[in-house]
Amino acid sequence: MKGLVCHKDGTIELLDVPVPGLVEDTDAIVRVSLSTICTSDLHIMHGAVPRAIPEKVLGHEFVGEVIEVGKGVKKLKSGVRVAANCITFCGECGYCRWGFINNCEKGGWELGCRIDGCQAEYVRVPFADMGLTKIPDSVTDKEALLLGDILSSGYFGAELCEIKPGDTIAVIGAGPVGLCAMSCARLFGAARIIALDIQDERLKLAVEQGLADETVNPSAEDAEMAVKGLTDGRGADGVVEAAGGENTFELAWKLARPNGVVALVAMYGKAQTLPLEKMYGKNLIFKTGGVDAVHCERIMKLIEAGRINTEFLITHEAPLNDILEGYRIFENKLDHCIKWAVTPYQR
Amino acid sequence: MKGLVCHKDGTIELLDVPVPGLVEDTDAIVRVSLSTICTSDLHIMHGAVPRAIPEKVLGHEFVGEVIEVGKGVKKLKSGVRVAANCITFCGECGYCRWGFINNCEKGGWELGCRIDGCQAEYVRVPFADMGLTKIPDSVTDKEALLLGDILSSGYFGAELCEIKPGDTIAVIGAGPVGLCAMSCARLFGAARIIALDIQDERLKLAVEQGLADETVNPSAEDAEMAVKGLTDGRGADGVVEAAGGENTFELAWKLARPNGVVALVAMYGKAQTLPLEKMYGKNLIFKTGGVDAVHCERIMKLIEAGRINTEFLITHEAPLNDILEGYRIFENKLDHCIKWAVTPYQR
Amino acid sequence: MKGLVCHKDGTIELLDVPVPGLVEDTDAIVRVSLSTICTSDLHIMHGAVPRAIPEKVLGHEFVGEVIEVGKGVKKLKSGVRVAANCITFCGECGYCRWGFINNCEKGGWELGCRIDGCQAEYVRVPFADMGLTKIPDSVTDKEALLLGDILSSGYFGAELCEIKPGDTIAVIGAGPVGLCAMSCARLFGAARIIALDIQDERLKLAVEQGLADETVNPSAEDAEMAVKGLTDGRGADGVVEAAGGENTFELAWKLARPNGVVALVAMYGKAQTLPLEKMYGKNLIFKTGGVDAVHCERIMKLIEAGRINTEFLITHEAPLNDILEGYRIFENKLDHCIKWAVTPYQR
Amino acid sequence: MKGLVCHKDGTIELLDVPVPGLVEDTDAIVRVSLSTICTSDLHIMHGAVPRAIPEKVLGHEFVGEVIEVGKGVKKLKSGVRVAANCITFCGECGYCRWGFINNCEKGGWELGCRIDGCQAEYVRVPFADMGLTKIPDSVTDKEALLLGDILSSGYFGAELCEIKPGDTIAVIGAGPVGLCAMSCARLFGAARIIALDIQDERLKLAVEQGLADETVNPSAEDAEMAVKGLTDGRGADGVVEAAGGENTFELAWKLARPNGVVALVAMYGKAQTLPLEKMYGKNLIFKTGGVDAVHCERIMKLIEAGRINTEFLITHEAPLNDILEGYRIFENKLDHCIKWAVTPYQR
Repeated sequence: MKGLVCHKDGTIELLDVPVPGLVEDTDAIVRVSLSTICTSDLHIMHGAVPRAIPEKVLGHEFVGEVIEVGKGVKKLKSGVRVAANCITFCGECGYCRWGFINNCEKGGWELGCRIDGCQAEYVRVPFADMGLTKIPDSVTDKEALLLGDILSSGYFGAELCEIKPGDTIAVIGAGPVGLCAMSCARLFGAARIIALDIQDERLKLAVEQGLADETVNPSAEDAEMAVKGLTDGRGADGVVEAAGGENTFELAWKLARPNGVVALVAMYGKAQTLPLEKMYGKNLIFKTGGVDAVHCERIMKLIEAGRINTEFLITHEAPLNDILEGYRIFENKLDHCIKWAVTPYQR
Repeated sequence: MKGLVCHKDGTIELLDVPVPGLVEDTDAIVRVSLSTICTSDLHIMHGAVPRAIPEKVLGHEFVGEVIEVGKGVKKLKSGVRVAANCITFCGECGYCRWGFINNCEKGGWELGCRIDGCQAEYVRVPFADMGLTKIPDSVTDKEALLLGDILSSGYFGAELCEIKPGDTIAVIGAGPVGLCAMSCARLFGAARIIALDIQDERLKLAVEQGLADETVNPSAEDAEMAVKGLTDGRGADGVVEAAGGENTFELAWKLARPNGVVALVAMYGKAQTLPLEKMYGKNLIFKTGGVDAVHCERIMKLIEAGRINTEFLITHEAPLNDILEGYRIFENKLDHCIKWAVTPYQR
Repeated sequence: MKGLVCHKDGTIELLDVPVPGLVEDTDAIVRVSLSTICTSDLHIMHGAVPRAIPEKVLGHEFVGEVIEVGKGVKKLKSGVRVAANCITFCGECGYCRWGFINNCEKGGWELGCRIDGCQAEYVRVPFADMGLTKIPDSVTDKEALLLGDILSSGYFGAELCEIKPGDTIAVIGAGPVGLCAMSCARLFGAARIIALDIQDERLKLAVEQGLADETVNPSAEDAEMAVKGLTDGRGADGVVEAAGGENTFELAWKLARPNGVVALVAMYGKAQTLPLEKMYGKNLIFKTGGVDAVHCERIMKLIEAGRINTEFLITHEAPLNDILEGYRIFENKLDHCIKWAVTPYQR
Repeated sequence: MKGLVCHKDGTIELLDVPVPGLVEDTDAIVRVSLSTICTSDLHIMHGAVPRAIPEKVLGHEFVGEVIEVGKGVKKLKSGVRVAANCITFCGECGYCRWGFINNCEKGGWELGCRIDGCQAEYVRVPFADMGLTKIPDSVTDKEALLLGDILSSGYFGAELCEIKPGDTIAVIGAGPVGLCAMSCARLFGAARIIALDIQDERLKLAVEQGLADETVNPSAEDAEMAVKGLTDGRGADGVVEAAGGENTFELAWKLARPNGVVALVAMYGKAQTLPLEKMYGKNLIFKTGGVDAVHCERIMKLIEAGRINTEFLITHEAPLNDILEGYRIFENKLDHCIKWAVTPYQR
């Protein structure tokens, strides 16, 4: 089969690779129907993911059809349509039982990072009962595609903010994760959502999709003043930092009101400075971390009920044959690309 | 001025009563712009409210304009448009500081119950800084009218259910409070809302307004079976009991899944039976009580942001002159009446 | 081997029964070192447990040594000392993953109820990885004996009360579960614990063991007035009802302050009356249910750290040979018996 | 009267200053019975508190007797013994009502910082109903002395950690606040407390007082390894950083287990580095800030009930006459000084 392999030097190549087979009893083999290119794939290429192992097939966000399951798989069988969780977890260790699955003692970010991923025709999924969510008949592949990574990340960011109905939430970065976070902030009852991005086009999209009520472009105005102006001088009740830029961390804590929550769901390339001496008394809460994709079933219910729709994020769609072109366009944000979806290889 | 007085024998009469004046420094006098008839008014007439004092002007749900404030009032002044909280509270005692304002040592349900209420031209509001919420310019009187009682009650019911996004919530009773509870359950992220009522017309309204996803008429089908059928056999994650009928309490705990929450926001005329011996192991949580209208500011923000709209509940509107007719129609649910709004007396 | 069987007519008999063997891959066989007689055993004998199956070996509270494990058991092996959870649960179904293990779709109260229990020489434990907790070397069998049932029940009761440091907690019933609840209420920071019981002897014990700060005997004084007298007229912040008597349910809601929590951990023989019409506005929370013994590892850490010690509850200890005498003494509360421990059969 | 004034250049002097009188209706005048020297006083002297105003009387931790109250004071009267909250707050603004009193729009750290403090014979306390807590008859001045600052800070740190019974908590810094945090961590059910300090003497005290179960001296061993060794390699469930040293911030996040909470209650002199790129996936929660001394009543109940005793921290006691000597000894940690208490001026 074809698979997109990331070499040690960060270059990627669409190669012939072996079709995966079952290794453990709890594995499933899935035929990939639709997958995506994700910013995290770029991080691996650029050497910014220490846990990544070279020469693996990339990709961790996909839907597909189960074609084979190990003897220990209880909830799935051949023929079932599924969406994958980007996090592999055993469901049994202490962290899993506490609900912190991304710290699973046997898992974490494995697919397309430490084991072969989904930018291929088939993929082996470990702990399949845990890592795959059935797609209801009324939900299309495309509606379910982003469930296990960027939608989970957006949900995670919104959840971390401890939103109460009526709150004002600022989201830094109106890219894929940021837009998902806005969508989920609504679910938790946010009355007003302020989107911040340096690309006006993305801000416009956030408003058009009904995700943002207010927008601020930090390259065009003083973002802290703008957000305070929108909140009676107090700042946002919660801030989701989904940009991971040079100064977005600093911006995040400036935008938050005293005793607010700052959720850091971006992946940072380097250390950040926390000016505790200036912040004394502001009593902020910082929640750091990678997506804890523990709510896939819950989010699937919301997709099924029509409460979340992320299809508009998929701006491009092309077969696996064209994936190198996809990386070029996605990485450089050309052609208004937000998410690039990969359909099966055409022979 | 004119005011609707409830006599000791439960009869009501529109009488000439004195215009109220300030009594305490923390009082405000409000000219009533719009008020309502509420089911609780009927409870007083029928002698079902032990704390009620006879010969008082009825009414506790209203909006109006402040015309005079005591020296101790800090946040309001003459000319400000306000919505009233049905609960009077001092803001200073232990219960108020813990957020349990309906157990305020100096308050509780006072207006139209123990002191003169709002079915009149003017009303005196104690602890005005606490009990009145400013109406933003962009919000109409009618949009704000139900804030302090039935909308707060619906919010309270939804909040009690500890809803997580994706949950299924059953609401028993699609009357004013039940419909508000459905609207608020959405705010907390409910994926599916099941409305239960014995009036098909009200169920239809719930669906038309986008408040309910599913409906069940317990007089036409086995409600427990119906709800289980909609929830993979488990039952609803949370149940709001807003009907207060003969068997609706029993229905409530039957509809809930194990470890679910049952919020009892109805006012009951008599004791209910809790068959603990049958429920052993189901581990339900029952939350009983009257509205804790502590979130008026928060809810006003949601009205302002367009996240809640209760105007459709106001099916009738007529001047104070016609209030007796209003009581007749509202009590008997004639003419599809849900809420009867009272406009100022016409001379 | 010997095992105490409960016949259909409620009589019990110490019989020769087969030594159990592995049935499922996830089973373990445990040699019982120490077990107890529990009030729930009496409930089975008296026909008050609908789920019970006749002709089973009784008993569900024990410690022992693993002597054989199925192939699917991952955390235990032969020779390990363990304490049993009275609840059997799979760890995989929706309820288990939410932490509501006593509603496990494949479990619940099984041991000594629906399958053979521990009042025998050996016992088969299903889902052994879930249902057995390792005993650290520094903890004796006797210290660990009550972990999985009455100590978990007491912990559950205290946890349900949502105790904050400084709270006053009333515990109705100073029997085994009540005394455990008092011990655990301390862990959650209760400043004052009020024990209620109709046996002065048990109240005295509660004080001597440092578990209760105040005591009330409802047969000797007006318990509601007494508790209000101890709490500035407010009532207790939380109430654990661990007695299950004729009027203890009513007493529970009377003792609670407005907006307090009433945790019902007793097993009731019949329905109870909830006078909602009188309680309107008191806004109580009732939490009903059987023990959710989900915290065994956590509690074992507390035993290991010396924060909980329940050994004083074990007033009697005798070999399995004498278990019928044990039932007689335990049931009739003779000889100051609180818990009767059963040591191995003497040949 | 005498008062210790801090000059603009950071020097302090015991001067004759006017006896304070009422300014606002909500003020009280308190005769100081016992006050303390606090590390924050040193911060003011060293110019590290931007909000401080020069030429004020220092001191913010004290007990005393009310001698005069304004007309608006409702809960206090002349003759009442009180402990002071180090935070001044109105109780009425949005932050106060949400419980974030240290962000009060009219308050914050005022006493001994922006207005005259308690290292004097008398002190004026604004918003006296909010800022003073009555001392029960059974509690001595000395037992109540630390309530409003360092004990509240320790409670705040422990509360931030979201401790569940059985957790392991690491406390960095076994000085006054750290020791209070250990004491309070017990209240929330911590099974094991690990004290870290570079002074063995203080670690010894923590153990002797029953506050710490384990100790680690980071200058003598690798603290991260030591804590992991004590926690099966995981790290502490919660970390209270009460030292505020050069590298204690970094140490804090290293000691925490994945998904743990790090409570930063120290006051930092400069910015700290947060190596988010290394911490990705560890999903830590950082809670920053100054004491939110909102639980004084609750803590006073715990003192009254004997659950907290901080008297052992008061190692020195001398009249106001000797306060300059007190500063010298306290600042340099001479003579095993932990807290220096100031008794009334001797004429």
